[in-house]
Amino acid sequence: MSKNNWHETQVRIRYKDTDRMGVVYYGNYLTFFEVARAEVMRDLDFSYAKMEEEGYALPAIEAGLRYHGNVGYDSLITIKTRVAYVKKVRVRFEYEVFDPSESLIVKGHTVHACMDKNLKPVRIPSNVKGLLEERFGI
Amino acid sequence: MSKNNWHETQVRIRYKDTDRMGVVYYGNYLTFFEVARAEVMRDLDFSYAKMEEEGYALPAIEAGLRYHGNVGYDSLITIKTRVAYVKKVRVRFEYEVFDPSESLIVKGHTVHACMDKNLKPVRIPSNVKGLLEERFGI
Amino acid sequence: MSKNNWHETQVRIRYKDTDRMGVVYYGNYLTFFEVARAEVMRDLDFSYAKMEEEGYALPAIEAGLRYHGNVGYDSLITIKTRVAYVKKVRVRFEYEVFDPSESLIVKGHTVHACMDKNLKPVRIPSNVKGLLEERFGI
Amino acid sequence: MSKNNWHETQVRIRYKDTDRMGVVYYGNYLTFFEVARAEVMRDLDFSYAKMEEEGYALPAIEAGLRYHGNVGYDSLITIKTRVAYVKKVRVRFEYEVFDPSESLIVKGHTVHACMDKNLKPVRIPSNVKGLLEERFGI
Repeated sequence: MSKNNWHETQVRIRYKDTDRMGVVYYGNYLTFFEVARAEVMRDLDFSYAKMEEEGYALPAIEAGLRYHGNVGYDSLITIKTRVAYVKKVRVRFEYEVFDPSESLIVKGHTVHACMDKNLKPVRIPSNVKGLLEERFGI
Repeated sequence: MSKNNWHETQVRIRYKDTDRMGVVYYGNYLTFFEVARAEVMRDLDFSYAKMEEEGYALPAIEAGLRYHGNVGYDSLITIKTRVAYVKKVRVRFEYEVFDPSESLIVKGHTVHACMDKNLKPVRIPSNVKGLLEERFGI
Repeated sequence: MSKNNWHETQVRIRYKDTDRMGVVYYGNYLTFFEVARAEVMRDLDFSYAKMEEEGYALPAIEAGLRYHGNVGYDSLITIKTRVAYVKKVRVRFEYEVFDPSESLIVKGHTVHACMDKNLKPVRIPSNVKGLLEERFGI
Repeated sequence: MSKNNWHETQVRIRYKDTDRMGVVYYGNYLTFFEVARAEVMRDLDFSYAKMEEEGYALPAIEAGLRYHGNVGYDSLITIKTRVAYVKKVRVRFEYEVFDPSESLIVKGHTVHACMDKNLKPVRIPSNVKGLLEERFGI
């Protein structure tokens, strides 16, 4: 898949996001990943909020991050996101975060399991699976 | 009421709590107030978690803070808390936050309304009201 | 001053912003106020980041909030902001937060004191004072 | 190394830590890992705050988490922590988080690089390296 297929979201770094080193606290990138996932799904006209309304949830079962750099207050970062696979129950998102000068600062991934209202694993709805596969050419 | 009646809770400042000014982010004191309220109620053997289990919630309807100083990473702060009044539906907590050298850094208050499971205002349970009034001599 | 003069900023509620009551955690509105202040200043072509670069800071010395309602995940809220006054050292921001159906959910204010690099109170730079006064007709 | 060598820290789940699923937000475990690292070092009489005072920092260059379960508000979780290795510049922490019934809910690790005040990689101070190796039998 060409890099062109990656979805892009921008986030402005808030004072709240920084810590006393003057840059983004390491745990906050998982929040930015959440924002990116939500925007991926919104752009497919199937928001995560809607998915939850229909009785599904996609809690994370795995997350990984590699920190190559960092950014400070007020920076407008770009999060490039793609879906690497959609299995029966699981979906894997991959992320690359870039600072305003387009340097890669963080690479990461999350794996999510589809759950029903009782938090039991269920198949990812076929329409969601289809939309993600089409969008990311997988 | 003498100052001796105030409840005391200690909180260690995390890296996450700081911002790029090197001190606690101004909004985080509302989290520390939450911790203090929870410990007040736990010490009365009626934890806030238990109150929610019984179908009540105490969402904030008002909050106020005055910042007189600040503290940095790893500081052990002391939050002195008291209940100023318990009305039919409302309860008012007051807080004073001290740094390790016992300087007052933040004064604040929150007012909460008792709600049932449907988020309708209800009387504060009489046992809770009684426990708070006895504890704080009000 | 007419309501038309208020500055408007929009913020999308993240999963991270919610708590187990399903709505925004009460302390997070202070983060949204921060976002709104930053956007007010950015729109005046004098970002808060720039102000800090020039050696000034505007820490909060007071904050107040009244909660009239709440919103849940994925809601797009509108924060209306104005500056009520700019004194020698102090500036007061006022905020009104609206949910997507334009109901007022939170009203608040913050007062900030201008500090230099050594955290000593200093006069608010006259150009910043002028820009804010002109923008808000005060 | 026997499990007995792992360091233990306890953290009480705050309302702020939960999200609308009623459990801890997935990114907050990185904050709990931070708390655990800080307590490991404090117990060696060489707090992370002291390390920073001496001109060193240990920013994360890698983090990984596997979520096996979750916990809700007011739960007292236990974070078991050990250091897997201390290399010239890098140190690896491993974490296991348990709920009050001693079920494993999250496993994770972080790798940190030692930096000087100019954020250039430097050798981990030999006394810190020695203390960690002795404590964890590595």
